[in-house]
Amino acid sequence: MAILHTVVFRLSHPAGSPEEALFLDTARETLTVIAGVRDFTVRRQVSAKSDLDWQFSMLFDDQDAYDAYDAHPLHREFVATRWATEVEAFQEYDFVDRP
Amino acid sequence: MAILHTVVFRLSHPAGSPEEALFLDTARETLTVIAGVRDFTVRRQVSAKSDLDWQFSMLFDDQDAYDAYDAHPLHREFVATRWATEVEAFQEYDFVDRP
Repeated sequence: MAILHTVVFRLSHPAGSPEEALFLDTARETLTVIAGVRDFTVRRQVSAKSDLDWQFSMLFDDQDAYDAYDAHPLHREFVATRWATEVEAFQEYDFVDRP
Repeated sequence: MAILHTVVFRLSHPAGSPEEALFLDTARETLTVIAGVRDFTVRRQVSAKSDLDWQFSMLFDDQDAYDAYDAHPLHREFVATRWATEVEAFQEYDFVDRP
């Protein structure tokens, strides 16, 4: 079953800053290299009912593809070197079709 | 600019119950009648990193369509009679394309 993996987050960088753009660009360039990552999308979160500003969304064909992504060295390195230091707050959600 | 309106939520009903199914079916049948609601989708939230269980997602072509939905009597009635009494917790997010 396909899994839509999403994370909504807030960066430590000012809105519109070069650092913000670099983070978003680096994420796309790094994570889309990983086999099994489909439909990688960066969206701006604009509801005032949340204090998070961005969303990454990606689709995996199945749990194996998701697990391979999670364990992939490029993903692990991105999390350790960029995510851990530049993201102030986040919330993950994974979605599947209604059973 | 198109707006992807989403809400992740948890119901007071047991998972797999008829009451749960009825809530989800009624939401779809009620809200998709409203002009401007596109791509209405019900998804199951499965990440253990969140305690919310379901997501409604819908696409509006622009803010006017979103505002018309928000003010629509069918939406207002659904929120007052079903959402307010059957939803235990929720989080809204609205997404637009990265500027």
